Amino acid sequence: MMALPKIVVLGAGYGGLMTTVGLQKELNYQEAEVTLVNQNPYHYVTTKLHEPAAGTLDPEYARVEIASVLKQDKVKFVQDRVIKVDPENKEVHLADGEPLKYDYLVFGLGSAPETFGIKGLLENAFFIRNLNGVRLIREHIEYMFAKYNTLKEDRDDLLTIVVGGAGFTGIEYVGELVDRIPELCREFDIPREKVRLINVEAAPTVLPGFDKELVDYAVKYLEERGVEFRINTPIEECTPEGVVLKGGEKIDSATVVWTGGVRGNPLLEEAGIETARGRVKVDEYLRAPGYEDFFVVGDSSLIFNEEERPYPPTAQMATQQGQHLAKNLTALIRGGSMQPFKFDLKGTLASLGRGSAIGIAFGKKLFGTKASILKRINDWRWYYLIGGLPLMFKKAKF
Amino acid sequence: MMALPKIVVLGAGYGGLMTTVGLQKELNYQEAEVTLVNQNPYHYVTTKLHEPAAGTLDPEYARVEIASVLKQDKVKFVQDRVIKVDPENKEVHLADGEPLKYDYLVFGLGSAPETFGIKGLLENAFFIRNLNGVRLIREHIEYMFAKYNTLKEDRDDLLTIVVGGAGFTGIEYVGELVDRIPELCREFDIPREKVRLINVEAAPTVLPGFDKELVDYAVKYLEERGVEFRINTPIEECTPEGVVLKGGEKIDSATVVWTGGVRGNPLLEEAGIETARGRVKVDEYLRAPGYEDFFVVGDSSLIFNEEERPYPPTAQMATQQGQHLAKNLTALIRGGSMQPFKFDLKGTLASLGRGSAIGIAFGKKLFGTKASILKRINDWRWYYLIGGLPLMFKKAKF
Repeated sequence: MMALPKIVVLGAGYGGLMTTVGLQKELNYQEAEVTLVNQNPYHYVTTKLHEPAAGTLDPEYARVEIASVLKQDKVKFVQDRVIKVDPENKEVHLADGEPLKYDYLVFGLGSAPETFGIKGLLENAFFIRNLNGVRLIREHIEYMFAKYNTLKEDRDDLLTIVVGGAGFTGIEYVGELVDRIPELCREFDIPREKVRLINVEAAPTVLPGFDKELVDYAVKYLEERGVEFRINTPIEECTPEGVVLKGGEKIDSATVVWTGGVRGNPLLEEAGIETARGRVKVDEYLRAPGYEDFFVVGDSSLIFNEEERPYPPTAQMATQQGQHLAKNLTALIRGGSMQPFKFDLKGTLASLGRGSAIGIAFGKKLFGTKASILKRINDWRWYYLIGGLPLMFKKAKF
Repeated sequence: MMALPKIVVLGAGYGGLMTTVGLQKELNYQEAEVTLVNQNPYHYVTTKLHEPAAGTLDPEYARVEIASVLKQDKVKFVQDRVIKVDPENKEVHLADGEPLKYDYLVFGLGSAPETFGIKGLLENAFFIRNLNGVRLIREHIEYMFAKYNTLKEDRDDLLTIVVGGAGFTGIEYVGELVDRIPELCREFDIPREKVRLINVEAAPTVLPGFDKELVDYAVKYLEERGVEFRINTPIEECTPEGVVLKGGEKIDSATVVWTGGVRGNPLLEEAGIETARGRVKVDEYLRAPGYEDFFVVGDSSLIFNEEERPYPPTAQMATQQGQHLAKNLTALIRGGSMQPFKFDLKGTLASLGRGSAIGIAFGKKLFGTKASILKRINDWRWYYLIGGLPLMFKKAKF
């Protein structure tokens, strides 16, 4: 019997999971050996992590058990941590298990925070990255609020939250905190006016690159709810006591959450693959430069638009990559040829807490409730894509 | 017009609040000027604090807004912190407000932890004392659990909880934690067997002074649910890393909760009143020795039984003192004479988490569900006593 082609997918994020679910749909039984490797037994919905990080959503709604969406006769799941990829020997090294051989590798491992060299950030800030991390942020904030009334001295830094970065994640997180803070104040007997929420952004505007009218709407909405913005103001240093801004302003804060961007997974650079800020400029078939069998999807891949500007890494991008790659890999295995990938930007929506959002969809600007509903429908769509209606009804909060 | 007699009640615990509620029931309008002083705008139900401290009860169920149980035409409420009582000049000094003059003082301010001189305890342990404190304990435990999976190293101390003292509060708290730990494990993806819950007691038995059959029942119940007991083992020292036991055993623990007893409020000693471990041996009318107008109720009072052994400070004792004192003060104001106080021990119940309890009531030993229901009814009784049926229905969890 001839050996089946081995497809190894690393990471069960949007890109990796979509590729895997696509493969198990496209491929017939015994057409290929598909293995999915992921550190946790669950997928987490990265686009929703700002909600459990604020405490506005039970983290259970932001995760999906991988076993519940895989067909075990078509895909083998390995729960392990990838410590090295070796494209020369076509193998993947794991923390606990035996190395895995592959014929085709799909690299979909998550990104690392981009700190832009800000001193002390990695040591002292929190990052909205994964489920363990956001539970820690939520618990940290609650702990600081709980502590406040037990101390004799006035430690206002315990009630000061600094969010670094006013991009998508930053703004969405600030929007959730705006909803959450009054609840925390009630729960811990703290006057609302004692709490400060400061959003710091180095660029000259909130949501850089976004439509000005939408940006103005978001800023007004959040400022009316007590958010202080410091735009055009890089963070110079993050310390255990808070942040120092360019120009010298010091903000005492027990909670600094950094959302200022991501870079590619360091394992790519370590494997000798050419990267820019850790991300791999993939070819039209999503392959790493110089490789026929090494595909990169999600945050670690870099794709340029027609104006030669990089697309920001998004769930939308990763999902489309995964869908496309599953079809291409199926074609390859059957001796056919691949189709080039083209990103189709359907729209962009940023939530501003429970009841509002802004964005562009169907070529139109959207504000407020309408945008918020559309955003929610979009979340549901992801559950539908990976787990069909049963998963959608289980996880969607209507 | 003759000045009305001034009654000042310090503290809205069981003793103080019961005295105040009794006075507003007994006294007619314009018969006396009654003032209640309390640091917080709420009363907290001390006998339930072990539940929010474990996270098994929303702290809102353990507090009652003072304004909701006072009749404002009969009692004036002052929210302030007492910093000094001056029995010679018959006045009370407050942190923020003007000193209060009194004709009769009811001292019902809460107790302080009894540390028995254990090194590092006050600095490094948590205490089940008040609402702010128990919210901190709950949040602290959750934070430690949230942190565990975010660290590279195995920090088992984060999942190790040491409860110092196996008296009533200690056992009841351990019982709640037994219920809570599996929930925490699910919430934070932690294997149950990683979590240790250790109850340390210096006396040769759990629940010293309690019926042996009941003690055995409690120990078996808790041990079957994973509790480790170290009896006959004093804590020598509490450090930021955990505890050192007599004999040298070190337990690494991020959470040490001390329940090993209380002493009287330090303001009494500071006022020159004779105390034993901070508690005042009151006369049969609940007066401090040598004073006609200085009454002490609750944990700061010391009353002996017929065998000349002190009654432990309990809510039951404080409640009866308050009820009795309200009648005596009314009699005094009307020119009558006081009746001596006699404590009537109705029973003693200790909960072992949600579904079980042990105790003695109506002269009978009680175990398990039956004791648990009786314990709950007893909680409801307190709400009924201070706020009637409406408060009982609002706060009771059926």
